[in-house]
Amino acid sequence: MRPETLDALMAIVGETNISTRAADLYTYGFDASIHHRSPDVIVRPRTTAEVSDVVKLARREKIPIVARGAGTGLCGGAVPLMGGMVMDMTRMNTIKEVRVGDLYCVVEAGVVYDRLNERLAPFKFFFPTSPGSAEACTIGGMVATNASGMRAIKYGATRDYVLGLEVVLSDGSVMRVGTNTIKNSSGYQLERLFVGSEGTLGIITEVTLRLAPKPKRQCMIMAAFDSLEAAGTCVSELIATPVLPSATELMDRTCIQAVNKTVGSGLPDCEALCMIEVDGEPEVVEREMGMVTKVAERVGAISVEATSDPKTMARWTNARKSVMSALSRFGERFVSVSLADDMAVPISRIPAAVKAFQEIAVRNDVVIGTYGHAADGNLHTKMLVDPMSEESWRHAEVAVGEIYDVVLDLGGTVTGEHGVGISKAPYFQRERASALDTMVAIKKALDPDNIFNPGKMQDWEGGIIRHLRYPCPDLK
Amino acid sequence: MRPETLDALMAIVGETNISTRAADLYTYGFDASIHHRSPDVIVRPRTTAEVSDVVKLARREKIPIVARGAGTGLCGGAVPLMGGMVMDMTRMNTIKEVRVGDLYCVVEAGVVYDRLNERLAPFKFFFPTSPGSAEACTIGGMVATNASGMRAIKYGATRDYVLGLEVVLSDGSVMRVGTNTIKNSSGYQLERLFVGSEGTLGIITEVTLRLAPKPKRQCMIMAAFDSLEAAGTCVSELIATPVLPSATELMDRTCIQAVNKTVGSGLPDCEALCMIEVDGEPEVVEREMGMVTKVAERVGAISVEATSDPKTMARWTNARKSVMSALSRFGERFVSVSLADDMAVPISRIPAAVKAFQEIAVRNDVVIGTYGHAADGNLHTKMLVDPMSEESWRHAEVAVGEIYDVVLDLGGTVTGEHGVGISKAPYFQRERASALDTMVAIKKALDPDNIFNPGKMQDWEGGIIRHLRYPCPDLK
Repeated sequence: MRPETLDALMAIVGETNISTRAADLYTYGFDASIHHRSPDVIVRPRTTAEVSDVVKLARREKIPIVARGAGTGLCGGAVPLMGGMVMDMTRMNTIKEVRVGDLYCVVEAGVVYDRLNERLAPFKFFFPTSPGSAEACTIGGMVATNASGMRAIKYGATRDYVLGLEVVLSDGSVMRVGTNTIKNSSGYQLERLFVGSEGTLGIITEVTLRLAPKPKRQCMIMAAFDSLEAAGTCVSELIATPVLPSATELMDRTCIQAVNKTVGSGLPDCEALCMIEVDGEPEVVEREMGMVTKVAERVGAISVEATSDPKTMARWTNARKSVMSALSRFGERFVSVSLADDMAVPISRIPAAVKAFQEIAVRNDVVIGTYGHAADGNLHTKMLVDPMSEESWRHAEVAVGEIYDVVLDLGGTVTGEHGVGISKAPYFQRERASALDTMVAIKKALDPDNIFNPGKMQDWEGGIIRHLRYPCPDLK
Repeated sequence: MRPETLDALMAIVGETNISTRAADLYTYGFDASIHHRSPDVIVRPRTTAEVSDVVKLARREKIPIVARGAGTGLCGGAVPLMGGMVMDMTRMNTIKEVRVGDLYCVVEAGVVYDRLNERLAPFKFFFPTSPGSAEACTIGGMVATNASGMRAIKYGATRDYVLGLEVVLSDGSVMRVGTNTIKNSSGYQLERLFVGSEGTLGIITEVTLRLAPKPKRQCMIMAAFDSLEAAGTCVSELIATPVLPSATELMDRTCIQAVNKTVGSGLPDCEALCMIEVDGEPEVVEREMGMVTKVAERVGAISVEATSDPKTMARWTNARKSVMSALSRFGERFVSVSLADDMAVPISRIPAAVKAFQEIAVRNDVVIGTYGHAADGNLHTKMLVDPMSEESWRHAEVAVGEIYDVVLDLGGTVTGEHGVGISKAPYFQRERASALDTMVAIKKALDPDNIFNPGKMQDWEGGIIRHLRYPCPDLK
């Protein structure tokens, strides 16, 4: 990068807020995915005005800009595929307004999910989307990927809470979209278009979020099954009853064994587990616990345990949250990787999907751990791969292709909550075939020089194991 | 319109499904707004393929197409401002799929809101957005305007239920956006961009909607106040408690007198009424009735009456639903018109807004009836205008301008649930100043020849009383 450019950037954000140190560039080349590419510079703006000035400069000099929150993304959305600039948004971390009487709050893009909910707790309100990376992920990143988590079935995804956005466009102008009202019919809902745009249309600097009242009580039911299909059937039976749980976490034998072995969670040894959380008003929670237990027993649960003891619920939740890391420590030489890890299918198709995934694992001689937010049809399949073995990667890649074939045949989507990034781009292109031209037209209209996160989503090509962190290009 | 064009249209949809009869053209030149312009032809397609062929023809011959559902819109969205073709979508009225276990249904654009909920009722599910025109309005029109109604505070607006769309684009191609899953992170959320697009980006032919479980019980509280501000305060106090009512309808003295006089509803004679509905599980409804009553008394209600008697609730609801027609029969020579009739402000700003509206009415010597879905900040102000008096219109137009000034100063929006159409275009342009260029860029990218509903929203100019139905241009 030209020294004059670095000087200009420094003049905008200040000397201490840009970096070209090798260690920084290397670190900022990662997110939580399998991909890596070092940027040429890291810029850490503090204000929307600084973001605007940086964008104007980048546009003038045709430098790619990749906005980055906490880098917790699992498919390479924050990896600067074409180099250029990573814009670290974490200094823009002010909660600007909390107006519970108006049911909204206004936050800068770099505010961390858990920090926001800590601030909202005393008011008995919360932002309920519950991503797995709640302790670290930023609101801006959540909007960019339409992030959600285990409570989407009852509370929806990030898109359902975005009332307004402040966005810096490719010409550096600052656009405000949406309103401070609960609803509007005031033209195109651009605030929702930018949800899921993964930094390719503009830089999100501020978010107005709708708030939800906190439930007064929670309890959990753990149901054990002798097959994944039975567990899947339990979930779709619940929905049709209707009982809308606040969470329904599915785990297969591989995941159960992994957490029992590495975390010592002492989960029932069985083929599949369903951890079902219900929340709301106390009497209703009591009644729904009973209904959930009945449904689980009717569809053939081996054992059903219900609790409202905070310690027990914390232990169960912790076991579930440990799955990803536990899988990585499960087999020697193997790490769990995010490849086909975020599919969603119509709820009633879960049994068919999990059965097919098991067959694919056997056929391709790969170990797959399946878990996920079953009640919203969102399944996570983590593959255990030997990162240093080309053959292991190839097996995995074939299995991934077959998994996505199944998901699309079942009327599902290749990503329920993680985003497209690099990992899912080719499968995303298949899923969205009839909409790609429109997405490209919008991208070109808003970012004619393609400076925002170039190479992601619609215009990326190639196999998923391009740009692998293993073996790490920067260490070769 | 050229005879060859009419023949070509006839060949696509069949002889009985196009019309150029003067009476039809005149009728299809109206919606429920103050505007009128007759189209040159009416086309009634039955299938997406027919829509596609008609669009290809219109694109080739540069003929404007205005998609129309039930024509219940209040701001001229369905009025063919530039003539051309009105595409009546009401023959596409098939409910294609109801999958309660998957929490969605698939309907053609012309399906009527109430018909859909009748079909869903046996499953204990519903599509809860509750527009005022529920008996007639179509799902396609609801998506095009992000329609909602008195239950948006608890259940959200149409945008919150759109999982997927089938859209015919300006080149006649058929695009599918969104998914059959509860959530997706699969690229730009185009399904939400088309919400609120008012037929300017494409023709919506099919909608996939999320379903919600029906509440088991409803009850209503009627609270009377000696000032509109006190009633407004009651609403924002409720929200902050938090109690989330399923509906909170506000009525001022003018509205109360109008329905008592014309419908004989026997509502309490007071300055302002709040009709508050709570729904859900029986015990919770009981408790929330008590909480609502407490809050209403604390903020100084003159009288509070609670009921779960279906007959009484029906009478109250009917009184509220009669406001619009009652106002039209309230004063001799006067009709109630939709001008500044759909503003929304942050909930806590309602008292300030209604106070300002009353001052504006006095200052401009106009009669304004104020009512609305107060809990989501959505206020309807109907003006009583002598349709044949230019002076009366001028007074109204000045008052409307002042009302929108107040709304925008309070951080509100010019339209909460009706849309922009013709009536709100100039005020919409003020509200959306920083977003207009982006909306125009998207419009040009998707509809380069501007055939879809030209002259609406972003590129329309002029005072609101252009294109008036009074005195009716076609009868002059």
